[in-house]
Amino acid sequence: MDKIGVLLMNLGGPERITDVGPFLYNLFSDPEIIRTPFPVFQKPLAWLISTLRSTTSQQAYLSIGGGSPIRRITEQQARELQSKLRDKGLNATTYIAMRYWHPFTESAIADMKADGIDQVVVIPLYPHFSISTSGSSFRELKKLRDADDEFKRVPMRCVRSWFSQSGYLKSMVELISEQISLCELPSKAHIFFTAHGVPKSYVEEAGDPYKQQIEDCSLLIINELEKCLGHTNPHTLSYQSRVGPVEWLKPYTEEVLADLGRSNVNDLIVVPISFVGEHIETLQEIDIEYKEIAEKAGIKNFRRVKALNTHPTFIEGLSDLVISCLEGPQVNLEEASKLPEKVKLYPQEKWQWGWNNSSEVWNGRVAMIIFLVLFIELISGSGPLHKLGIL
Amino acid sequence: MDKIGVLLMNLGGPERITDVGPFLYNLFSDPEIIRTPFPVFQKPLAWLISTLRSTTSQQAYLSIGGGSPIRRITEQQARELQSKLRDKGLNATTYIAMRYWHPFTESAIADMKADGIDQVVVIPLYPHFSISTSGSSFRELKKLRDADDEFKRVPMRCVRSWFSQSGYLKSMVELISEQISLCELPSKAHIFFTAHGVPKSYVEEAGDPYKQQIEDCSLLIINELEKCLGHTNPHTLSYQSRVGPVEWLKPYTEEVLADLGRSNVNDLIVVPISFVGEHIETLQEIDIEYKEIAEKAGIKNFRRVKALNTHPTFIEGLSDLVISCLEGPQVNLEEASKLPEKVKLYPQEKWQWGWNNSSEVWNGRVAMIIFLVLFIELISGSGPLHKLGIL
Repeated sequence: MDKIGVLLMNLGGPERITDVGPFLYNLFSDPEIIRTPFPVFQKPLAWLISTLRSTTSQQAYLSIGGGSPIRRITEQQARELQSKLRDKGLNATTYIAMRYWHPFTESAIADMKADGIDQVVVIPLYPHFSISTSGSSFRELKKLRDADDEFKRVPMRCVRSWFSQSGYLKSMVELISEQISLCELPSKAHIFFTAHGVPKSYVEEAGDPYKQQIEDCSLLIINELEKCLGHTNPHTLSYQSRVGPVEWLKPYTEEVLADLGRSNVNDLIVVPISFVGEHIETLQEIDIEYKEIAEKAGIKNFRRVKALNTHPTFIEGLSDLVISCLEGPQVNLEEASKLPEKVKLYPQEKWQWGWNNSSEVWNGRVAMIIFLVLFIELISGSGPLHKLGIL
Repeated sequence: MDKIGVLLMNLGGPERITDVGPFLYNLFSDPEIIRTPFPVFQKPLAWLISTLRSTTSQQAYLSIGGGSPIRRITEQQARELQSKLRDKGLNATTYIAMRYWHPFTESAIADMKADGIDQVVVIPLYPHFSISTSGSSFRELKKLRDADDEFKRVPMRCVRSWFSQSGYLKSMVELISEQISLCELPSKAHIFFTAHGVPKSYVEEAGDPYKQQIEDCSLLIINELEKCLGHTNPHTLSYQSRVGPVEWLKPYTEEVLADLGRSNVNDLIVVPISFVGEHIETLQEIDIEYKEIAEKAGIKNFRRVKALNTHPTFIEGLSDLVISCLEGPQVNLEEASKLPEKVKLYPQEKWQWGWNNSSEVWNGRVAMIIFLVLFIELISGSGPLHKLGIL
C-alpha cells in the first residue's frame, strides 16, 4: 500500500520570548507580507520593523504565557489526523511545515524523504486562500521542491482552500451553538465573525480571493447554524489585526464592536473565523484587547467561540478532505502556488507614462533611492545636502 | 492512572544550512562548553567562535545532506519508546528537550503542562554522564523548572547515566556482531571504540566521571560480546572530535587509526560508543574523515557499526530504564544536576598566593582586561599605548 504523507502547512510562532524578534524578522522578510520595490531592501526593512515591534510583541506573548501555542496545537492536530486516517485504512503519516518558525518546511521534506513517502497530500491549515498565507506557504514548498531532485519525483496533490468542507462547517456550527446555548435569549445573540485582515490592496489590486472566501464561508456557517438551531441570528463580519499605515479590509473589528455596543447588543458570540487553532490573535487580541473594547462599549456578555484545535468533528472533516483530495482531480503544486492573474510582480517590465501601476513602482523606487542617499549623508556627514548648506 | 511524561534530553542540531551559525552560537554560549573567567565575555566569545567556525561546519553539514538528522531520529526514538511503554501498560507520553536547537526545553515543559502530566521521568540520551552533555541539560532543566511555579509542583525522577543498562549493552552487542559476521576472519576483527572527547581538564580538574564511565562501558560491551561470540577480539578505545588548542582525552582517534594501520589490521569494526543516534560525528567525521585516514594508513575494511537509532532491543532497553526509574529510589533534579565536587566555579572566592587554581583564574582575568583595553584603544585611536608612542 502506498505510503501517504500528509503535509499540514501553518504560520508558526515563537515559543520562547527570545524567539519573538527572529520570528518577526522571518515574517517581514517574506515579500508576500511586506512588498518593497527593491528586493535588496527586504532584509534591512524586515530587521528595522522587527526591531521596532519586538518589545510590544513580546509583551503580548508574555500575557499568554510567554510563547505561541501554535506548534503544540498543530502537532496535536497532526497526531489526531494521523490516527483518524489510519483508522480509515490509509497508510498515512502527518508532517508539519511552518512558514516563519520551527519546524520549517525543510524539516518536513527531510522527514518525508527519510520515511520513504510515496505520495504527498498538502493541506494548508488556513481554510481560506490568501496570497499571504496559503499562497506564501505553497510557494515556499515549490521553491524547495524544485531544488530537490529526489523530492521532485514524489507525486503531490494540493488542496488550495477548503472553507466549504462539510466537516469544517459542522464543527464550527457545533462550537458556535455551544456558546449560543449559554445565552438567556439564544435567538437574540449576535454572531460576530472576526477574520484576520489583509491590506485592501491585496484584494482590490492583486486579486486575492481571500475576502470573497471569508464572506462565502460566513454565510455557509450562518445557513448551517439556522438549520441546526431553527432560528435566525443577527450576524456581522469584520476584520482584525491591522498593523501599519495602509488601509486594510473593512470593517475593522474594533469599530464594529463600538457600533454593536451602541446598538445595545447584550450577548455577543465572537467567532474567530480564519483560525483553526488558538494563537496570539485569539488568546491575546480577542480575549484581552477586543474584549476590553467590547465591554467599554457596553456589551454585557462577550462569549468567544473556541478555536477548532482537535475538535473531533473538525479532525473527521480534515480526514475526509485528505481522502477526497486523493480521489478527486489532481491539483498539483504549480497550480496551487499560482498567484492570482492580477498580481503585478516586481520588477515591472518597463516604464509607462501616466498614473498607473508602472508609475507607482517607479515612484517607490525613486523614494527609496532618495531615502538611501539621505541615510548615507546622515551617517557620513557629507553629501549633496551639506554642499547646498541645508545640513 | 498517573499520566507519565518521559522527557528525553539531547544536544540538538541545525536542520538547515542557515541554522548552523546560530546553532554554534548557542553551543558556545554555554559556560559548560567554553569557560571564560568573566561571564560578560561569554556571548561575544561565542559570537566570535561561531562566526569563525561557521563556514567549515556548514561544509560538513552539506556533505551529509544539508543538516543534522538528530531531531528526526530523536523524534522517532521518542515515538517508538512511547508505543513500547503503552504496550507495557503505562500511560506515558514522550517529550523531547534539545539543549542547543529546536525543540528547546521550554517547548517540552509547555507541552507537558498543557497535557497535564502528573509525573516526569527524565532520561538524557547520553548513556554516559559528562558535565558538558547530560550535566548541562539537567542544569538547563533545573533553571527553567525553578522559575516555573506550576511546573515545580510536578514530581520528577531522573536517570543520571545508564551505560550499564542490559538492553543498551545487548543492542550494542547485536549491532557489533552484525559487522563482525561480515569479516573473513571474525576472531581477528579489531573492535575500535571511538567516543566523543572532552577537554582533559574536565576529567582531571573538574572530576567529570565521563572517562571512567566510557572505559567501564567499553569493557562491559567486550564482555557481553565474548559471551555472545565465543571468542575474544582485540579492542582499543579512543576519543574523537577534538577542537581548539587545549589537550583533550587521549588517545586521539586519528592517531590510533594510524597506529592500527601500521600494525596491519585488516578488519576494523568502528564502534561509535557515546552516540545513540546518527549525527554529524558519525555520518561525517567517522564515515568520511576517519575512514579516509584509516584507508591511507592501510586498513582494508573499515566497517562502521550503525548508531542505535530505533533498534528494537535498544528501545526495549529504554522502556525498561523508564520503568526501573519509576520503581527504584528517586533521584531528583537537584541530585541529577549536581556538579562533581571538584568543579571550581567562577568566580573564585579570593586570591591565593602560589601556582594554583586561584592564580589561573586571576591570570585569565588580567589577560582579559588587557585584551579589552587594547581593543578599545585600537577602535578609539587613543590610550596608554599611543601616549607611550608604541601605537
